[in-house]
Amino acid sequence: MKTQYYTACSLDGYIADDNNSLDWLFQFGDPEESSYPDFIREVGAIAMGSTTYEWILAHHIDQNADMPQTWSYAQPTWVFTTRQLAQVEGADIRFVSGDVLPVQQEMRKISADKNIWIVGGGDLVGQFHDQGLLDEIIVQITSVTLGSGAPLLPRKITNPPLKLQSVRMMGDAMVELRYLVTHP
Amino acid sequence: MKTQYYTACSLDGYIADDNNSLDWLFQFGDPEESSYPDFIREVGAIAMGSTTYEWILAHHIDQNADMPQTWSYAQPTWVFTTRQLAQVEGADIRFVSGDVLPVQQEMRKISADKNIWIVGGGDLVGQFHDQGLLDEIIVQITSVTLGSGAPLLPRKITNPPLKLQSVRMMGDAMVELRYLVTHP
Repeated sequence: MKTQYYTACSLDGYIADDNNSLDWLFQFGDPEESSYPDFIREVGAIAMGSTTYEWILAHHIDQNADMPQTWSYAQPTWVFTTRQLAQVEGADIRFVSGDVLPVQQEMRKISADKNIWIVGGGDLVGQFHDQGLLDEIIVQITSVTLGSGAPLLPRKITNPPLKLQSVRMMGDAMVELRYLVTHP
Repeated sequence: MKTQYYTACSLDGYIADDNNSLDWLFQFGDPEESSYPDFIREVGAIAMGSTTYEWILAHHIDQNADMPQTWSYAQPTWVFTTRQLAQVEGADIRFVSGDVLPVQQEMRKISADKNIWIVGGGDLVGQFHDQGLLDEIIVQITSVTLGSGAPLLPRKITNPPLKLQSVRMMGDAMVELRYLVTHP
């Protein structure tokens, strides 16, 4: 059981641009040999912040969505929010707020031997890291710079540093880096 | 002859932390199989911003430097600054300011068939990119996050995107990514 941050980001470390758009990412279509099918198969529980959740609602779920699709996760999903947000019909979505530790403990019980995926945003991942609960970072670095936007992981993690485990080039549009997170 | 940005940066896209420190980088010592010797051999002219130059003065050149060493570049070096800065004795350093285009033209004449290296900072590299003068980005992504600091390249470069040319893993502390910059 590992707690993983799996995400795409720009070369300069942003997971979304200033308008919360992912157009810079989707221009490449599906990357060659994506690791996603293998990754998601081992995930037993999902956590995300409210901005990520609302992005999915707006772009996939809502009546006027520009990329309509059904909720794509079979796994139970915890959404961190202090606001009242719309439920997605037929999806196992649990709204929570506050400290990530008790939520992570609940997620562990349900995910059992499968992994926990923190989808983002970066600060939610940082809250897991602050409590020593983050095990891996798997990041697809996309061949763009954004200059500004939503940060990958707004924390200083230098001591101990991350440990680069593997590198996989996916055409000229992406490279996937896998890091082990160690805690002092 | 190519104009290249060759630099180390954190996973979240910073080339220096908020205190302009590189301690997060130097903790790893010399990376295994560094590309630097092969890279610098092909460089005929160097450009850097004043912050980068003053960092070298403070940490390498000054009497009280914490890592004293002589000026390490045999190549003529153009320093962009609007201020009066100290010269390094015995080094070919040319202080310039303003538009990068005429400076790049002068550098090209002197570098002849060798490359131009823009050491940084990110905004100076951005000014070269703005005028279509940047050809390659070679970045060693170090296994840390800084959360804030001096940005790698404060520009939006998505259309056309960069083209990832090669990837080289250097132990668990670094991966080197080489990008081709194309211009519309």
